[in-house]
Amino acid sequence: MLTPGVPTRPERAPGGHARRRDALRAALREAGLDALLVTDLVNVRYLSGFTGSNAALLVDAGDDADRGEEHTVLATDGRYTTQAAAQTPDLPVLVERACAPALLNDRRGRIGFDSAHVTVDGHDALVAALEDGELTRAPGLVETLRAIKDAGEVDALRQACAAADAALAGLIAHGGLHAGRTEREVARDLEERMREAGAEGPSFDTIVAAGAHAAIPHHEPTDAPLADGDLLTMDFGALVDGYHSDMTRTVVVGTPAGWQRDLHALVAEAAAAGRSALAPGTATRDVDAAARDVITAAGFGEQFVHGLGHGVGLVIHEAPAVSATATATLDAGMTVTVEPGVYLAGRGGVRIEDTLVVTDDGAVPLTQSPRDLVPE
Amino acid sequence: MLTPGVPTRPERAPGGHARRRDALRAALREAGLDALLVTDLVNVRYLSGFTGSNAALLVDAGDDADRGEEHTVLATDGRYTTQAAAQTPDLPVLVERACAPALLNDRRGRIGFDSAHVTVDGHDALVAALEDGELTRAPGLVETLRAIKDAGEVDALRQACAAADAALAGLIAHGGLHAGRTEREVARDLEERMREAGAEGPSFDTIVAAGAHAAIPHHEPTDAPLADGDLLTMDFGALVDGYHSDMTRTVVVGTPAGWQRDLHALVAEAAAAGRSALAPGTATRDVDAAARDVITAAGFGEQFVHGLGHGVGLVIHEAPAVSATATATLDAGMTVTVEPGVYLAGRGGVRIEDTLVVTDDGAVPLTQSPRDLVPE
Repeated sequence: MLTPGVPTRPERAPGGHARRRDALRAALREAGLDALLVTDLVNVRYLSGFTGSNAALLVDAGDDADRGEEHTVLATDGRYTTQAAAQTPDLPVLVERACAPALLNDRRGRIGFDSAHVTVDGHDALVAALEDGELTRAPGLVETLRAIKDAGEVDALRQACAAADAALAGLIAHGGLHAGRTEREVARDLEERMREAGAEGPSFDTIVAAGAHAAIPHHEPTDAPLADGDLLTMDFGALVDGYHSDMTRTVVVGTPAGWQRDLHALVAEAAAAGRSALAPGTATRDVDAAARDVITAAGFGEQFVHGLGHGVGLVIHEAPAVSATATATLDAGMTVTVEPGVYLAGRGGVRIEDTLVVTDDGAVPLTQSPRDLVPE
Repeated sequence: MLTPGVPTRPERAPGGHARRRDALRAALREAGLDALLVTDLVNVRYLSGFTGSNAALLVDAGDDADRGEEHTVLATDGRYTTQAAAQTPDLPVLVERACAPALLNDRRGRIGFDSAHVTVDGHDALVAALEDGELTRAPGLVETLRAIKDAGEVDALRQACAAADAALAGLIAHGGLHAGRTEREVARDLEERMREAGAEGPSFDTIVAAGAHAAIPHHEPTDAPLADGDLLTMDFGALVDGYHSDMTRTVVVGTPAGWQRDLHALVAEAAAAGRSALAPGTATRDVDAAARDVITAAGFGEQFVHGLGHGVGLVIHEAPAVSATATATLDAGMTVTVEPGVYLAGRGGVRIEDTLVVTDDGAVPLTQSPRDLVPE
């Protein structure tokens, strides 16, 4: 193949990508920047709608929105001339293989670059290209905007969550979780059902972990067959218009033992506590604590080995982080996962994960699947 | 999900990853480096076998191999303690979330870092962590080693190519290329057949482009149905043990028109010329020229809008580049694609791509599928 694949569906951007660029301009002026060089392809897509595999975008802060838009330019290479014209009819396109340095030619002023994305060698090329201006570090500006989803984005995430819900419901309804089936077969089945439900595909490699494997938080499905009495953890999601859903359910194959019921009830209680703590103005570390405290009080704090959740959108893991060390504060429009887990080496584990959108009236679940240990 | 998925199958490294680290040490000593900080996860995997999603490796150059190995350390975080012990039993493991800076604590001497991979912000963290040593740019050292495949790697690539060949043969044998079928259906069919043939999955998003879409080099499959007389380009590959195969075939749905036969014959001739030019010691730009000259002489030079090919291995695009501007020279053990294409806007296009391994006796094709315009 010629270039890494990037979906080329229509973009979800009510009000247009121009509205997002305007929002960025306000942030640029606040940061004292004359322009921002956007190099991360997901950020380029978010701000322009362009989905090719080689691009950069120079967003001019302007004195006002109109003037800034006039001097805002997308760069890509010759493979994407047609695609750029179709996807970004409102922007001038510079055709050049070395996109980012090319956008700096003849520029002046204070130009921000994404120091969390541009490499040391890439920075050299920018310095060489910018003759009269000043390059300055400006990481995370677009990611901060992306953390707050607009209505179209929430709609895409809702559809992605619904495709995953439908896949799990179909799997259960068709008896797809019986002893003898392999982890890999269950994973394929879920992925195929998500596609049937309208997803472009899975949003990440599906995790299916049975029995002792369920004690491994991040387990790749094997040809191991499910056995009666196994805990079975399925962590999966669907991709719709570039937006990623993310959910986890742990069920039991056959009849649950007492310790499995107890462990599942504990994690379910922690998950509920985490979901209830989601509200605008709340620090994400406090959301983590709300769930973690439940598990720690039951004596399993050491077995909850990861953060509670993460933002989700055009990337499966994005701002805000939801963990004990996170520094983010929730705001309306953020979409996050809540996924506490307890892992008992050699025996199995339980994780329950939902994707939700934070609103002024509390969190609204986008994941709708029941959370029963014994699926019906 | 907790972390991006990375396959955890056994690694292909006859002689062990230690042999690869020894080869790197020779390069380090030649470059006057006391150690190399390896941060790219594919490079970490290549040198250690570790496949987790957060890791770094410090390879000490040592005075001799034994001493260097003694001071070589893998770092990863707490989620991967068990996995690291299983995958890298021969290396000490440092458990720390900020892997790369942690490996520099208490180090001295000249330490190379991958300036083509480490970000500007990441570099700051390294500088802060290294108190007594000197950080120096050392991009591409591991990539240079990776370009020459060992026997186990060639074997994995051969299996990956065979899975793609089997998928296409099965698709054709089962009448999967008839009018009325959609691009998306053909893509799914190929992907499912590659899995049945033993692949972990596709090695990239399958490209299926029918009719006028075949004029778009990088087209995402749609619900557009194939029609009689369409050119149909399929660009796809399989993943086996982390190694990527890559092939393209253009066929016609139904009976070909004269211009389609001519275009296909031209591209087939260019592809053959490119394959024949593959030999140790040849500049890859000369390989590109061998194929490009055929197309240019026929008057379609402007419609061959991309490079001739690329190296392929643990990453779908890796060293060496095979293009008009490339600076690489072929060596035995390199695995590359040869994929000329001609694209006629609004009408369609033809691309033919094979993966081959360069040997002292010329290039050996790993892709085995026939290249007929009318598949049988």
